[in-house]
Amino acid sequence: MAARVSASRETPAFLAACLRQPVPYRPIWIMRQAGRYLPEYRALRAKVNFEALTRTPDLAAEVTLQPLRRFELDAAILFSDIMTPLQGMGVDLAFEPGPVVREPIRTDAQIEALPALVPQRDVPFVLETIRLVRANMPRLAPLIGFAGAPFTLLCYLVCGRPSKEFAAARTFLYAQPHAAQRLLERLADAMAEYLAAQARAGAQALMLFESWAGLLAPREFEQFALPAVRRTAAALRRTGVPLIYYVNQGSTLMPAVAQLDVDVVGVDWRSGLSAVRRVLGPGKAVQGNLDPAALFAPAAELRRHVDAVLEEAGEAPGHIFNLGHGIWPDTDPDSVARLVDYVHERR
Amino acid sequence: MAARVSASRETPAFLAACLRQPVPYRPIWIMRQAGRYLPEYRALRAKVNFEALTRTPDLAAEVTLQPLRRFELDAAILFSDIMTPLQGMGVDLAFEPGPVVREPIRTDAQIEALPALVPQRDVPFVLETIRLVRANMPRLAPLIGFAGAPFTLLCYLVCGRPSKEFAAARTFLYAQPHAAQRLLERLADAMAEYLAAQARAGAQALMLFESWAGLLAPREFEQFALPAVRRTAAALRRTGVPLIYYVNQGSTLMPAVAQLDVDVVGVDWRSGLSAVRRVLGPGKAVQGNLDPAALFAPAAELRRHVDAVLEEAGEAPGHIFNLGHGIWPDTDPDSVARLVDYVHERR
Repeated sequence: MAARVSASRETPAFLAACLRQPVPYRPIWIMRQAGRYLPEYRALRAKVNFEALTRTPDLAAEVTLQPLRRFELDAAILFSDIMTPLQGMGVDLAFEPGPVVREPIRTDAQIEALPALVPQRDVPFVLETIRLVRANMPRLAPLIGFAGAPFTLLCYLVCGRPSKEFAAARTFLYAQPHAAQRLLERLADAMAEYLAAQARAGAQALMLFESWAGLLAPREFEQFALPAVRRTAAALRRTGVPLIYYVNQGSTLMPAVAQLDVDVVGVDWRSGLSAVRRVLGPGKAVQGNLDPAALFAPAAELRRHVDAVLEEAGEAPGHIFNLGHGIWPDTDPDSVARLVDYVHERR
Repeated sequence: MAARVSASRETPAFLAACLRQPVPYRPIWIMRQAGRYLPEYRALRAKVNFEALTRTPDLAAEVTLQPLRRFELDAAILFSDIMTPLQGMGVDLAFEPGPVVREPIRTDAQIEALPALVPQRDVPFVLETIRLVRANMPRLAPLIGFAGAPFTLLCYLVCGRPSKEFAAARTFLYAQPHAAQRLLERLADAMAEYLAAQARAGAQALMLFESWAGLLAPREFEQFALPAVRRTAAALRRTGVPLIYYVNQGSTLMPAVAQLDVDVVGVDWRSGLSAVRRVLGPGKAVQGNLDPAALFAPAAELRRHVDAVLEEAGEAPGHIFNLGHGIWPDTDPDSVARLVDYVHERR
């Protein structure tokens, strides 16, 4: 796609890589880098519950910045939850600890009753968190804002609680395709409003998480998930910041993803990056994709696994190093430090 | 691979398709076809718990045959559980209702202490079930025996209980690769013994379930899961019955799977069968791959989804129709009847 931002000599490596421009070293950040594997996060959580953390700007900003103080990460990502904007839209939600929707949404009437999201009114604390993070960023590291992709949010709304197969959500697509499309449109519009507001508040890149892409066959992905993301992405062009689409377990969906107007595609660890780049073409950067489990390997082995990812990614500009999925809570922070340093050393 | 059985004019369509021979109609069976979506199964389960059902030959045989009486299915599959042989090897197991290993296996000492499986001594009820099913088969439908593939069994043994990410199992591979390989070898040998005994008792095809293949990147699949399956498959050549390897969420693993000496590869619904057949080459049949959720579509829509699978499978011999994953408990049996009839009508 056309570059949303023009890079200059001062462009941070992360943003330059989003735009497929040459970088002095390989930028790296880590999905869920602000979280439970950090003792300083656990210390805060011992005093404040998860939901309160996400809704209290100075605490959410502190948590966002914790990993940046400890590691030489090239980007920060807003500490929040993909369900937060839905809560702002009036969806009755509990964290047990996974999100539970008390009244799953499955009827036309429920879908029509979903209000539009007005971020400044409904989730002001998210925007305030972004402003605080930007004001307190310890060094030149861009802040990534994020939201759940519409189909992934549909999975939670229809099923009520996370499940291995998300059977109710997949049944909904097959049994009530028109209702599903209507719900996806509303979610697409809400997430466009939400992310645009994040960009206005200071987010320098925006990421859509399609965590449950792996539930869909290519035909259903193209019928349901893809048009919804396209709708969100189109609305976000005018923000002028790079857009990242993370597609979990989506190896068979990449030909469809290639059609999307996004800057970066996030890739899980099951796909080789060279094959993904071939399918996506030269117009998109990629982000990923070390197996989170590799952080449990001995140090020398970890380097070997990093080498393999870098070799797959190749030398062409447009690769942001990351894990292929969120970091696990029992990961040793020292292993993360070794990872970040080695990726930077390797260039 | 070389055909394990030579087909004749009397070869049932299912076995002919396993051997990539022409068939008069497209054979179909359904993963978990003996199970909770059937009222007659639920009636039995109301009186007998799951574990007792699997261990009582006349009841297990009855459950195996229930779907054959109701639908024109082209194969039966043994009613059992992938953990049953491990229980026979002394692993302390509970069903809650998913399998829970009371003392997860993670040390060299535990691995070395695992005894070999002697099927006639350790799981005689499985072999007796097979004999009863064969003796009572209502029509010409072959019986499929099965086992868990070694890596999938490792996931349960190492983690103790099923989990979304099977983090402990994946950590085990990275942190203790030699112990993992040793455990996989022992499981490969045990499953070879188990399946060979099933064939001697009367199973006419054998299936290995790699239900958790989707956890692995191609490199780790090739390092761990693949050599173990190869070991089991090699030991089974002399049984003379077709071998099916079901690979769930394995689209990026197919180039590795193509190297395996198996007759049929089972495919989940996320991969297009035409692409899979291209990668596997002409020497293997494929089995699958309708999304289990498609059975919830209205009848006309269901036919459209079946058409799409058949179109992907193509006209070349060597396709067995199936779902891409086990049928869901809340599926309407009438929808299954419509599926089976339509696949047979379509040829």
